[in-house]
Amino acid sequence: MAQKKLPSVILRAGEDRRVRAGHPWVFSNEILMDADAKAIPTGSLATLRAPGGEALGLVTFNPHSLIAARLLSTNPEATVDALFLGRRLAQATALRDRLIGVPYYRLIHAEADGLPGVIVDRFGDALVVQVNTAGMELLTPVLLEALEAELSPKTIVLKNDSPVRELEGLKRSTTVVKGDAEQPVELVENNAKFVADLSGGQKTGWFYDQRDNRRFMADLAKDASVLDVYSYSGGFGVLAAARGAKSVVCIDRSQPALDAAKAAAALNGVDKVVSFEKSEVFDALEKLGGKKFDVVICDPPAFVKSRKDLKTGTQGYRKLVRLAAPLVNKGGFFFVASCSHLVDPPLFAEQVRRGLRDASRTGRILRSSGAALDHPVHPGLPETAYLKALTLQLD
Amino acid sequence: MAQKKLPSVILRAGEDRRVRAGHPWVFSNEILMDADAKAIPTGSLATLRAPGGEALGLVTFNPHSLIAARLLSTNPEATVDALFLGRRLAQATALRDRLIGVPYYRLIHAEADGLPGVIVDRFGDALVVQVNTAGMELLTPVLLEALEAELSPKTIVLKNDSPVRELEGLKRSTTVVKGDAEQPVELVENNAKFVADLSGGQKTGWFYDQRDNRRFMADLAKDASVLDVYSYSGGFGVLAAARGAKSVVCIDRSQPALDAAKAAAALNGVDKVVSFEKSEVFDALEKLGGKKFDVVICDPPAFVKSRKDLKTGTQGYRKLVRLAAPLVNKGGFFFVASCSHLVDPPLFAEQVRRGLRDASRTGRILRSSGAALDHPVHPGLPETAYLKALTLQLD
Repeated sequence: MAQKKLPSVILRAGEDRRVRAGHPWVFSNEILMDADAKAIPTGSLATLRAPGGEALGLVTFNPHSLIAARLLSTNPEATVDALFLGRRLAQATALRDRLIGVPYYRLIHAEADGLPGVIVDRFGDALVVQVNTAGMELLTPVLLEALEAELSPKTIVLKNDSPVRELEGLKRSTTVVKGDAEQPVELVENNAKFVADLSGGQKTGWFYDQRDNRRFMADLAKDASVLDVYSYSGGFGVLAAARGAKSVVCIDRSQPALDAAKAAAALNGVDKVVSFEKSEVFDALEKLGGKKFDVVICDPPAFVKSRKDLKTGTQGYRKLVRLAAPLVNKGGFFFVASCSHLVDPPLFAEQVRRGLRDASRTGRILRSSGAALDHPVHPGLPETAYLKALTLQLD
Repeated sequence: MAQKKLPSVILRAGEDRRVRAGHPWVFSNEILMDADAKAIPTGSLATLRAPGGEALGLVTFNPHSLIAARLLSTNPEATVDALFLGRRLAQATALRDRLIGVPYYRLIHAEADGLPGVIVDRFGDALVVQVNTAGMELLTPVLLEALEAELSPKTIVLKNDSPVRELEGLKRSTTVVKGDAEQPVELVENNAKFVADLSGGQKTGWFYDQRDNRRFMADLAKDASVLDVYSYSGGFGVLAAARGAKSVVCIDRSQPALDAAKAAAALNGVDKVVSFEKSEVFDALEKLGGKKFDVVICDPPAFVKSRKDLKTGTQGYRKLVRLAAPLVNKGGFFFVASCSHLVDPPLFAEQVRRGLRDASRTGRILRSSGAALDHPVHPGLPETAYLKALTLQLD
């Protein structure tokens, strides 16, 4: 891809400081949005320039998005081709192979892996790719070429169905660009087997971000009775059973998710230990009132998806804790997570505290954790660390 | 201990809300500090009352401390005797025995274990106790009786040398109240052996709070060259060697700490792998300029000990990163921690980001972690989660 003459995106006076300090995003109000800038086609590669004209790096540019420029390289002369993307893929793959040990992981986590707007989850020789920016949308053919060169996958699903695409003016669609994704695939996590639907499931079909939290909770759940709500495909509950839990109840509103969890229970030989219930979680928790479990796990979907949800969604976490904490045995363990990036760790911890108080339960926070190691965070974007989880012992 | 007629500590109008919401501290400005209140002897047990007179719980009271009342029980009728303290010790012991598996851990972590002002670290049959409030100072004989009843320790060291005692009007001293603490003791952590000086070392002689971070870094350090600065007694560096690091350099300013680390290296059969250097860390890092390591570990003492240190201490973390990051090989791992409770996680992460920028290094945060599981946090006191650690891969 020749890029001899890239258009220039020029920062307003004083607005080059953050980029010089290592931040990979430029907001639209930091850019001199003159006629030339507005004429740059959406998603173009561009040279980012300081107010004085100095080239600071290479960006993808979308004048219609709040995050108008995303840094691809601090080298303004870089050529963005399959080799360029391939080097970043290779580096990310080497890190995961070392940290995770089996080829089932988040391979690319956007900016932290040098590829803004790109998510790639790996399921052995199948890849699920999410492209969330106009810049990466234009580069998708090059990205696919680089993935082919680095990993020779049998299957590639382009799971471009995230609502965040709309912020970039992109349509939502799911396309199997290579191979066949009609059948669910098997994956290995924490030495157990699970099942993911790569084209029809939520997000990429599996939530690798909870891998380490699942292992931690499964170790706590030995010989325990376990309740796993928002169980999805059994990453917590089935693993707990595989690690020796006495009994596990998985509750989810999605029948396909429960079917995948059932398949995982069978694959791990624990189908007699795990039971499944299709239900809205809040309803199920209310119905369970009076029952007790040694370990209760709550891994809900994002209750806060946008700023307008902040108040009600935040209260949702409090309500969840109010309903779930009473089901924990004295001395038992309680896990609750939030993947809402707008709810920061102190705000989340405050909701948990309030929910415990509502439920008249006391206890102690044993562990405050985030996403697994294959979900790194760019040092300049601490706010992208979206996953927060607290593990408590309750009195 | 009969306590038929406890004095009353009465909250000002509107100030009962936080206590009712589960907060275990009452600040002096929230209390009706009349002549009766001022006449209560420092450290007394007292009944905490709402402005209307309703009894909210049982507290220890120190009218001369900013944190004037600390909740011992929400039951105002509770009798605080060796049985009362013993129940809390038993609960804390059961949790640690389950979570840690060997009798080397923080047994009591203050409010989170229901014993405000008390720290107990366990080294098998030796206990190091720190009493940090006037209330617990008066209760020390009862606490020792309860420890005796629950754990029958051979050795008890009362390591009352923390500067925080002065905020409570208490003198600093170290007393061996049972047995003999002249010889260092052996402890087991992460399946390796270490040595701690219970009466002469820093704090309680060992920092159990980094147990899980040490294990994580040691797993990353297999076959690696490792630099461990502020190594203290080798918890990171010697463990890395024991788990297969190729070479380890431990740097600390304290000769006794390095002697303990040397002893640990010998105990684990890795004395040929680990070398030791007595030096101020900043000086040593500057001298190492040009050398590279696969893994660099920085676990400094608190740079910010009081609000007046906040600016310079915070800059200390930035400087540490600026000097240490250049020593990390491309693709290598960098661990940096802060135990300054006044430096919150976002402020710490910002210093790390700036230090990396100063050093012209980029990378990704793989893990953001805190203290080990035996250092629980009271849900109402999130600010007491003092330990923050970031692990990065650098490019």
